[in-house]
Amino acid sequence: MAQPVKSDLSLEKIVSLAKRRGYVFQSSEIYGGLNGCWDYGPLGVELLRNVKDEWWKSMTLRDNIEGVDASILMHPRVWEASGHVENFTDPMVDCKQCKARYRVDVLLDELSIKKKKEVLREINPEKFAGQQKDEVIQEEFSKLIESDVESAKLVPLISCPSCGNKGTFTDARKFNLMFKTFVGPVEDSSAVVYLRPETAQGIFVNFQNVMTASRQKLPFGIAQIGKAFRNEINTKNFLFRTREFEQMEMQFFVKPGSDDEWFEYWREERMKWYINLGMKKEQLRWHQHPKEKLAHYAKDAYDIEFLFPFGWGEIEGVHNRTNFDLSRHEEYSGKSMKYFDEESKEKYTPFVIETSSGASRSFMAFLTGSYHEEEAPTADGKTETRVVLKFHPRLAPIKAAILPLVNRDGMQEIAHKIEEELRFQHRVFYDDSGAIGRRYRRQDEVGTPFCVTVDSQTLQDQTVTIRERDSMQQERVASAQVQAYLADRLRR
Amino acid sequence: MAQPVKSDLSLEKIVSLAKRRGYVFQSSEIYGGLNGCWDYGPLGVELLRNVKDEWWKSMTLRDNIEGVDASILMHPRVWEASGHVENFTDPMVDCKQCKARYRVDVLLDELSIKKKKEVLREINPEKFAGQQKDEVIQEEFSKLIESDVESAKLVPLISCPSCGNKGTFTDARKFNLMFKTFVGPVEDSSAVVYLRPETAQGIFVNFQNVMTASRQKLPFGIAQIGKAFRNEINTKNFLFRTREFEQMEMQFFVKPGSDDEWFEYWREERMKWYINLGMKKEQLRWHQHPKEKLAHYAKDAYDIEFLFPFGWGEIEGVHNRTNFDLSRHEEYSGKSMKYFDEESKEKYTPFVIETSSGASRSFMAFLTGSYHEEEAPTADGKTETRVVLKFHPRLAPIKAAILPLVNRDGMQEIAHKIEEELRFQHRVFYDDSGAIGRRYRRQDEVGTPFCVTVDSQTLQDQTVTIRERDSMQQERVASAQVQAYLADRLRR
Repeated sequence: MAQPVKSDLSLEKIVSLAKRRGYVFQSSEIYGGLNGCWDYGPLGVELLRNVKDEWWKSMTLRDNIEGVDASILMHPRVWEASGHVENFTDPMVDCKQCKARYRVDVLLDELSIKKKKEVLREINPEKFAGQQKDEVIQEEFSKLIESDVESAKLVPLISCPSCGNKGTFTDARKFNLMFKTFVGPVEDSSAVVYLRPETAQGIFVNFQNVMTASRQKLPFGIAQIGKAFRNEINTKNFLFRTREFEQMEMQFFVKPGSDDEWFEYWREERMKWYINLGMKKEQLRWHQHPKEKLAHYAKDAYDIEFLFPFGWGEIEGVHNRTNFDLSRHEEYSGKSMKYFDEESKEKYTPFVIETSSGASRSFMAFLTGSYHEEEAPTADGKTETRVVLKFHPRLAPIKAAILPLVNRDGMQEIAHKIEEELRFQHRVFYDDSGAIGRRYRRQDEVGTPFCVTVDSQTLQDQTVTIRERDSMQQERVASAQVQAYLADRLRR
Repeated sequence: MAQPVKSDLSLEKIVSLAKRRGYVFQSSEIYGGLNGCWDYGPLGVELLRNVKDEWWKSMTLRDNIEGVDASILMHPRVWEASGHVENFTDPMVDCKQCKARYRVDVLLDELSIKKKKEVLREINPEKFAGQQKDEVIQEEFSKLIESDVESAKLVPLISCPSCGNKGTFTDARKFNLMFKTFVGPVEDSSAVVYLRPETAQGIFVNFQNVMTASRQKLPFGIAQIGKAFRNEINTKNFLFRTREFEQMEMQFFVKPGSDDEWFEYWREERMKWYINLGMKKEQLRWHQHPKEKLAHYAKDAYDIEFLFPFGWGEIEGVHNRTNFDLSRHEEYSGKSMKYFDEESKEKYTPFVIETSSGASRSFMAFLTGSYHEEEAPTADGKTETRVVLKFHPRLAPIKAAILPLVNRDGMQEIAHKIEEELRFQHRVFYDDSGAIGRRYRRQDEVGTPFCVTVDSQTLQDQTVTIRERDSMQQERVASAQVQAYLADRLRR
């Protein structure tokens, strides 16, 4: 058995592996990249598809959940009703002298430590008179600019990084994080539409249509996977904070009063989903939003956080959104969003329990969570460090590698025959170049759960070895049984 | 057997069925809709997923095709290199008097028949002096405005629909069909990015990254499914011409000189794909682009057209794009797009055979192509018209319906047990309300290939009937065998 070694997993390691082995490339890399956008390569697209498929099946293979796929461009009134036009904003200032424009938090955050100290002294001369350490200054300053109100007070104290003048900034204005574009030939305000900043609203506006067409009754849910866009200034941490990303959202509509119970049910279901697909419990935790920081629409909200190389980060939110969204759409559209309960003969606006998972963030969590460096024996009795991605077999991009031990005695032909049989249903990889140990390592590094090796015994008794990635144990299986073996292992 | 009746299939019938049964809804319908955008409902999203999955498998379950999933937002230089910034345009004019803006073809096309006659008389007094029929006028005028150059000459002859003045239009300018947005807080030209108008460029810019990571050698292909956007003014024909749509594109990179052969290969493969999934040969045809109308990058180009209710329309293009795209990206990025051929020791820029299928258009073709109205016998010996969507079972959104004949004697429990077993892998539907004939019809109308009925004989011998949608034939199968029966039928 391989012994785990202490892993000093860095984000760089993941980003580098991701590029080298075709998981994730920078978007438009040959042109220097587009900040906040990423492309999934050959293995990445398969991992992403597998994550999304597992989610989709876990949701829609239920009798009380329906799927939808709403368009990215929606009517602009949707975002007035949802509150995004008014509230989905960051504060911005312009320099009146040179017209340069800055997001307040970025402007302040990017100040040198020396400038930060000056600003702190200006607002609190007594506290910051002495010789504080840089870390202390940094921490105090960061705490201060967490609040938009406090940040706005600091702006007059600093100079414009562009022209150097002080006190030339306008008051802070709201900058909306929605990308906007224009439909039709005229670029004026009446033609503005937005790229959706979340997929949830595509579910809410279709609530009545879905319910009518599917003949569902409460409680029932609507699931959707799709892209969303946010004009983030601070993109960071690889796939974690990007401008273009994918969500897997399910909104569960329930009778008010039963919402707490369903909230608990979905919290449990969603945590189980990650664990069943191989995430370790110690890499996951719940973060409850404190009551005073809850979004205006929420009654209760928990995030599922994953321990990334940069620290804990949200991969899913499970929120009790009350009847806020449906009520707002009723108000703004004039169309009833109410539900007539045939049992109780009541009419009411359903409450919504939302499970909102980031597909891109889940992808990154599964990728980093599966990364291991282990000491493993080599053929000549020494040990070496092997990099292995321990994906759940259903998530693994390549399900099996087929490896003829040597290139003679018809081993290649037999291997190709097995490859053909498997390829009918699965993504598999044929490799006949290099030492078998090196070939195993290449498959370990991309997370292929099974290596099928054709050796000299195969020629005698029509059996092959199947090596399991994590245990590195091999067992002999009749060649004719490889397909059934794989099908069985993928069902678990 | 059911007898086909003459079908007077109209687009309205499809749109209406699509909405009623949850295939397709208008986007943001409660706000009056967003022109050119559509949402897929519970059954639509399953059909669309099945179409895309079949395509993906047909491409990536090969050893010489890799997948990617590139971002929708790309570096703006991509679209300069591809020629879209310069050439992906329609001509537009402004009224100098009232500032109203029009697309030239729309402006001309929307003139009344009387005005069209006046214009024709003005440019050709002799030919149009007499009393031509409206249809003749319409046809002559439409022919004339097919050309941008001719259209531009007509504009000075007409009045502005907004202010009524004549001769006030500016010269025609180019209007770009790409949606643009701004990255970052400043809305100026340096921040412009576009929503991709096609997925192909996401493949070209990743050519070297994919080849390196996957260790592929020529010939090999890269496949991608994703959304694309075009700011069409004339959206029409339901899902056929929309502003937001989905493409399934595969670019196959080959050695120059072998391109004609691969072009033929992929033409054949792609036509087979539609036919194997149930499209009728007589509903499909090839349209070859005439040499004089080929796009500047193309050596040869064929479209696969489908007979829609509105006439023949393109659902896929198979194009020989030569080395145009890779050469342009090499020129614009300064990064080599060449391939070193180890066999011949040559270095060259690969040619590209493109298969570009519309996912949304294929969806619409599968939906309309499967629509049938047939005379079918009723329980009391009469006949009625049944609407049936004859999807290939692998495309059908719901694979099986489970129907207890009556709600007593434990039939519901048995039916629920079968439902549970099947739902583990398939989307199935349980229905115990109404006469069995009506329940069959409801499933026919959404294209469910198999209806499993639990009846009194089930109680005695543990068999159920399975009714096949198209033949309406029933066979008795052991309840324990239903899962295997379905798996077998879905493999065919």
